[in-house]
Amino acid sequence: MSSRINTQCSPGLKRVAIFGGTHGNEMSGITLVNMWMKNAAEIERNGLVTKPFITNPRAVEKCTRYIDTDLNRAFTLANISAPEVDGMPYEVQRAREINRMFGPKGTQDAYDVIFDLHNTTSNMGSTLILESSQDLFNLQMVHYIKGVKTGSTADCMWRGPDTGGYLPGGESGGFNPGREPDSLNPGGNLLTKAMAPHTCSVLLNEHPQLKYSTTRSVAKHPIGVEVGPQPQGVLRSNVFESMRTILKHALDFIELFNSGVEFLPCTVEVFRAQERMDYPRDTNGNITAMVHPHLQDCDWEPLSRGDPMFLTFDGRTIPYEGASTVYPTFINEAAYYEKQQAFMTTCREILTVSQRTAGAQPFQFSSDMMIPISSLSSGGLLMVSTRGEKWDENKESWQLWTGDG
Amino acid sequence: MSSRINTQCSPGLKRVAIFGGTHGNEMSGITLVNMWMKNAAEIERNGLVTKPFITNPRAVEKCTRYIDTDLNRAFTLANISAPEVDGMPYEVQRAREINRMFGPKGTQDAYDVIFDLHNTTSNMGSTLILESSQDLFNLQMVHYIKGVKTGSTADCMWRGPDTGGYLPGGESGGFNPGREPDSLNPGGNLLTKAMAPHTCSVLLNEHPQLKYSTTRSVAKHPIGVEVGPQPQGVLRSNVFESMRTILKHALDFIELFNSGVEFLPCTVEVFRAQERMDYPRDTNGNITAMVHPHLQDCDWEPLSRGDPMFLTFDGRTIPYEGASTVYPTFINEAAYYEKQQAFMTTCREILTVSQRTAGAQPFQFSSDMMIPISSLSSGGLLMVSTRGEKWDENKESWQLWTGDG
Repeated sequence: MSSRINTQCSPGLKRVAIFGGTHGNEMSGITLVNMWMKNAAEIERNGLVTKPFITNPRAVEKCTRYIDTDLNRAFTLANISAPEVDGMPYEVQRAREINRMFGPKGTQDAYDVIFDLHNTTSNMGSTLILESSQDLFNLQMVHYIKGVKTGSTADCMWRGPDTGGYLPGGESGGFNPGREPDSLNPGGNLLTKAMAPHTCSVLLNEHPQLKYSTTRSVAKHPIGVEVGPQPQGVLRSNVFESMRTILKHALDFIELFNSGVEFLPCTVEVFRAQERMDYPRDTNGNITAMVHPHLQDCDWEPLSRGDPMFLTFDGRTIPYEGASTVYPTFINEAAYYEKQQAFMTTCREILTVSQRTAGAQPFQFSSDMMIPISSLSSGGLLMVSTRGEKWDENKESWQLWTGDG
Repeated sequence: MSSRINTQCSPGLKRVAIFGGTHGNEMSGITLVNMWMKNAAEIERNGLVTKPFITNPRAVEKCTRYIDTDLNRAFTLANISAPEVDGMPYEVQRAREINRMFGPKGTQDAYDVIFDLHNTTSNMGSTLILESSQDLFNLQMVHYIKGVKTGSTADCMWRGPDTGGYLPGGESGGFNPGREPDSLNPGGNLLTKAMAPHTCSVLLNEHPQLKYSTTRSVAKHPIGVEVGPQPQGVLRSNVFESMRTILKHALDFIELFNSGVEFLPCTVEVFRAQERMDYPRDTNGNITAMVHPHLQDCDWEPLSRGDPMFLTFDGRTIPYEGASTVYPTFINEAAYYEKQQAFMTTCREILTVSQRTAGAQPFQFSSDMMIPISSLSSGGLLMVSTRGEKWDENKESWQLWTGDG
């Protein structure tokens, strides 16, 4: 399976919003945003306007997911561009206001990045939700946040603005201001990725049917931050702190990016949304089975043909019957009962820059570009620096790149 | 600390109700009750009318805790006996209906037992909630359900109707129809407690301020079944099965009791409600700290002076400062944010029959009686059979009791 990244980045990102309360009973984001609205010191970064914002204040006030309709499905073109009429659902009115404040969606005037903070009752841990595999900026950001799980020296590299060298990413990487030059770090004083990177899964939802019109979709670079498990209406300190750490790293990344740091191609493991699985139901639409205890809480773990999936109220196990192994997520999420979804299946992909097609420019963020990527299994990794250098794995050093692949 | 049990039991219990949906987003009880309303075979017992009933159908329909007000606080005398007026809150109307159907509360016409099925987001496991330490019937029932945790041979005894002997309770006890007579089981063919007893904690809420007017309080013997952790709006198979097991044992107990089985005095560990602890708040009433990660999920575990209790948003630990060790429960329950409760403190007590005061009749359910009990620390345990025998610990046999203590 191969994918392509096509991204367009302006030279610098100026305006970032952090949304909480898109669902009024998801307490971590609401609490963080309220905290930052009182004291923004923690989210301030050089040259960046960062706006914390409660998107659905009436739902927050009532500690309910929404008032009339799900705000996080309300940002359709029809909703945000239709003429004003009386009696619009509250969340549709709100979507139009948010679009005016942070958009308009799909235009150059829109905010650069919107983080939308969510919680789930599912055992998903920290999850970053992307809406497009073409958004290279977001992919680099999530790579920075989550750190690198493999031992490969080629996973990610990025360079400080005042240095001449690069350092491969790795589990223990980070900002190394005093690092001595060596073969992997010829210039010394290099960056790799977030200090104490945060373990995250990446959900890529660009499925034509499953993708929906999110609140964050107003921005050029929308990113969902989904942390669980946390019951609706509850604030758990571990979930709160995970979300806070993710935002810290994300804002650090944007500041570094704006400061001129150039990021090398990297690989990112993503779980691509595939299918919505409903609970078994009777002819009246009533649920007749529960998520099987062997599947419950096993988000992101493989589910293969024959594995237990549901348990009926009379004790019968219903196995998964799909042909291929999938990676379920949003397992038994409270809010998705009404959406007829017991869990979502995903497939696992590795997105990586491999080879550019034609008229290649060395990779950098600050120009319009298209970067073809493919899964690791389809070929080797090509790393190209902004100076037109290529990483030579045999020589373990940077060599002038002549465009030969 | 000492307590007294004063109970009055009619010779047999005829009518039992199982309530689900008192809170419309607590899914295990709702699902079980709906299931039993379609097919009651599982809850049928000889000589018993068992009625499964959804108490707050509008809240269930909306999957919300309540419509206008908390039904489980609505069964005050004022609410259920005041003249009908227009515009009563939905749950007050409903309380009046339920009181007419299953009560009237406090009268001989009331249902004998009501089980009210609840879920909590707290890590409380399976909890049975009693409203009175005087309700010996309920104490015996929870003892039957939960089994005996200590190794004492004196913890509980009860006798089958057609046998002449008794068998002390123990972790591995149960119904032993083929058991051979021995010194502890002189008659053979004895009962002790539920097969595969279910581990439960017992919350005793008879605190004058903390006790509230529950839906189940309509019955002569009200018992709350609270199982968690389970997020609101979610059905987890493990929680569902725990609740189902508790009800099975409870109904078995009532059937055995009605069949003439006599139960000997027993000890029951209870956690007595003591105090409601709120989250730290600012002058506007906004929460400024979370349950500390060292306390989160530690329901029923001791909390002593100096132990971490809350964690402020700026990272400061607030310790518990009470003089005595307490056992917190309902830690970080979603529904209690609006009730200004982060958790409830309890103290641990062992309720046990020790010595009768005057004019003693051998213990049995079928007569009006008052059984003095005291904590184990206040003295030895006296077991007296319905035949006027006393268990002699030294001789490990039943001896004629002469009322000498």
